[in-house]
Amino acid sequence: MQNHKINQKAKPVSRGVASSKSDVKTKRSDGIRKEASVLVIGAGMSAARLINYLEQHSEKYNWKLTVADKHTASIKKIVRPETKVVRFDIFDDKKREKLIKEVDVVVSLLPARFHIEVARTCLKFEKSLFTASYESDEMRELADEIEQKGLLFLNETGLDPGIDHMSAMNIIDRIKAEGHKLLDFESFTGGLIAPDSDDNPWHYKFTWNPRNVVVAGQGEPAKFIQEGKYKYIPYNRLFRRTELIEIEGYGRFEGYANRDSLKYIKQYQLEGVPTVYRGTLRRPGFCRAWNVFVQLGMTDDTYYMENTENMTYREFVNSFLYYHPSDSVRTKLFHYMHIDQDSDIIEKLDWLELFSNKKLGLKKATPAQALQHILAKKWKLKPDDRDMIVMWHKFIYREKGKRSRKELTSSLVVEGKSRTDTAMSQTVGLPLAMAVKLYLTGKLKVTGLRIPNFKEIYEPILEELKEYGIEFKENLKDKLNGS
Amino acid sequence: MQNHKINQKAKPVSRGVASSKSDVKTKRSDGIRKEASVLVIGAGMSAARLINYLEQHSEKYNWKLTVADKHTASIKKIVRPETKVVRFDIFDDKKREKLIKEVDVVVSLLPARFHIEVARTCLKFEKSLFTASYESDEMRELADEIEQKGLLFLNETGLDPGIDHMSAMNIIDRIKAEGHKLLDFESFTGGLIAPDSDDNPWHYKFTWNPRNVVVAGQGEPAKFIQEGKYKYIPYNRLFRRTELIEIEGYGRFEGYANRDSLKYIKQYQLEGVPTVYRGTLRRPGFCRAWNVFVQLGMTDDTYYMENTENMTYREFVNSFLYYHPSDSVRTKLFHYMHIDQDSDIIEKLDWLELFSNKKLGLKKATPAQALQHILAKKWKLKPDDRDMIVMWHKFIYREKGKRSRKELTSSLVVEGKSRTDTAMSQTVGLPLAMAVKLYLTGKLKVTGLRIPNFKEIYEPILEELKEYGIEFKENLKDKLNGS
Repeated sequence: MQNHKINQKAKPVSRGVASSKSDVKTKRSDGIRKEASVLVIGAGMSAARLINYLEQHSEKYNWKLTVADKHTASIKKIVRPETKVVRFDIFDDKKREKLIKEVDVVVSLLPARFHIEVARTCLKFEKSLFTASYESDEMRELADEIEQKGLLFLNETGLDPGIDHMSAMNIIDRIKAEGHKLLDFESFTGGLIAPDSDDNPWHYKFTWNPRNVVVAGQGEPAKFIQEGKYKYIPYNRLFRRTELIEIEGYGRFEGYANRDSLKYIKQYQLEGVPTVYRGTLRRPGFCRAWNVFVQLGMTDDTYYMENTENMTYREFVNSFLYYHPSDSVRTKLFHYMHIDQDSDIIEKLDWLELFSNKKLGLKKATPAQALQHILAKKWKLKPDDRDMIVMWHKFIYREKGKRSRKELTSSLVVEGKSRTDTAMSQTVGLPLAMAVKLYLTGKLKVTGLRIPNFKEIYEPILEELKEYGIEFKENLKDKLNGS
Repeated sequence: MQNHKINQKAKPVSRGVASSKSDVKTKRSDGIRKEASVLVIGAGMSAARLINYLEQHSEKYNWKLTVADKHTASIKKIVRPETKVVRFDIFDDKKREKLIKEVDVVVSLLPARFHIEVARTCLKFEKSLFTASYESDEMRELADEIEQKGLLFLNETGLDPGIDHMSAMNIIDRIKAEGHKLLDFESFTGGLIAPDSDDNPWHYKFTWNPRNVVVAGQGEPAKFIQEGKYKYIPYNRLFRRTELIEIEGYGRFEGYANRDSLKYIKQYQLEGVPTVYRGTLRRPGFCRAWNVFVQLGMTDDTYYMENTENMTYREFVNSFLYYHPSDSVRTKLFHYMHIDQDSDIIEKLDWLELFSNKKLGLKKATPAQALQHILAKKWKLKPDDRDMIVMWHKFIYREKGKRSRKELTSSLVVEGKSRTDTAMSQTVGLPLAMAVKLYLTGKLKVTGLRIPNFKEIYEPILEELKEYGIEFKENLKDKLNGS
């Protein structure tokens, strides 16, 4: 780590002035590079769309593309012949330095925890960095040096985080510019399944990282502000405090609070706005049934259970229920959780075969791992299944100079094209690729550690996303008092 | 820490042979020391009883006593003139070494997390160590060296842990020796309030560390085995799965599962026993009401709330409730928690003034800290209040050569003598002091890292505790099938 020590004494470099040798050589006075080389590290689920976009623009702008990943076989199938593919392990310090040193811009699609290694090397060789992940505390420690060196480290430029920031800020800035007073901002996103692939009672399948779904909401409580009061929802109540929303053409969804909404007050400049709430979307009924797993302790990922190798699904469930000499596990669960005989929860649990004699067969497993194992067999995408992402914002504001209030909703639905060309990979990969283009073509002049919450970035990206069918629909109506 | 590095190459010393210079000088062939010096580090709540006991025996056995603590003023009032009192900070390495080097035996009454520093120094100078705290993982890493040097590090020799081990093992060993087959072992302990000091609807006051009470049960789920099945109760269900027990002359208590009962299977040699369960005792109704705090998220100690300085009790409660334009906080809570209008929970919450305009006045507080602050004002001991500790074991066994089953219960109730001479300090301080006496008088010959789960220690201590009114009452009856 010593190599990456922050040089606090680095001289400030004036904004926009190129500081690395290759910058000076290739950048024209209008900021557009005559040529540029881009390194994409990590070729996970969103990589294809991003690489594809950069390749499509590489001839026009004279870009050279290198894709580096631990596994290169599958990447070679999706890239053009002129794109270089390199086998690379993130912990190979020497190779990381060599790769980054040679290029102008780095995109990291690695799992979020690995970005910091890339970031430190980018800083050392004065290269800008783009990711779709949340800005980490470690990354924040580098902020001053990033600024001093005149670099741009742009994080949170995918879907959520990413398009959520851009689409929300677009409207927030507009409402403010028009002189209205914002009273309420709510924002929900969900990674779901397209309507014609929706064929199970949960109306859900794993379309992204299953583990994140199983442990969602754990840790600190959900935090938000409502009518000027700070509110906290602990994990054990999270899935019981849902809101219903409706999106034209797609029906109803339910949302539960998503982590810390309070941090968006600063990020979106919402100081003084009485209600700020962010949530995650599911189809109605999901949360009530999921809550059963939460209550039983089946989502706990902090300890290993005994004997999971030979345990049946039913025995797994029984581990969380009281002992009874004669009642069945199924009866005990319904009794313990106060589930009525005609509740839709019963169908959902039965459909998962939760009370069956199927073996878990897991050598060592936490409850969350065992549950994920059971869910993964049932919530698996079929060959023709397509995913769907849904984003929905609500803004209530008092009109300038009036007492009347307006409610503006803005919604986005993107359906995947296939099991591999998913809505998720489009909406994560495209905005990030577009940000790289903006940067390399001199249209993104900011420096420092940033997220895409400013006009210079959200305006062109939201505009270009429309060309790919990624477009928000707005709906404005009068807001009646007390409703 | 370098000073305390474990010397893995230390020569094994044969058991019982004195290894330090002072040992050789003072120990007679029968193991009784002609003289000995004892260092007591940390003079908290249980110290008075322990010091008092050691002082009472010091003339007969020729012991010199040193008490070391950060604050010495209050200690000087309770010790005899011949006892040396030293001001001492545990992080003062030099002084710690000097103090420990000079004595024969060390007793640590420090908070558990500080024992390891003392333990490493004891190892360095080859002194035995006694504590009333749980054996830590760090301490376990020293086990080989403790054994090699022929020392005794005896932990868990207070009440719980301590008397619970001794009294349970006393009966477990007896049942085994008589050839019966143990089917069920359950054990409950509670630190409560004496009947004539019991004057609030919770039937509870803080008689020990309040923070431990507020965060009790958090972290990993309670684990136990029942009828051969492993069971796990997550925190959010812990206070809803209680058992009722009755103790003659003291009425009814309720118990909730206490952490990891499974580790006692090894410690008590209960392999193959179908039911092993340990719990914590409260008066009936406590857990149902406490569960309201758990469900609301008011016991969370992991994050700081906004604005706790100017917050009222009612606003604190409201932070965990949904927004409603007109309903009162009190109404919202009862509705949210499904509390009936005639529930005893209402009296308990009202008695705490939870819906009042009283100010919290805490600069920075987690929910748990805010709740503790509110509780501490109400659950405070009055000048004449006395505490009470209750311990209750149940053993079900099949009689040797018969099909019939017996149920043996063993119960202990100790009431405090005053607000300072508490039941807790007697039952923590006395067993530890007695263990030191056994060691110094050559009656405790084992070496290594130990807890008091063996006959050589539990038999004399349980016997001597009777002289102080600390005596278990047994009750044996036939166990009918299905009951």
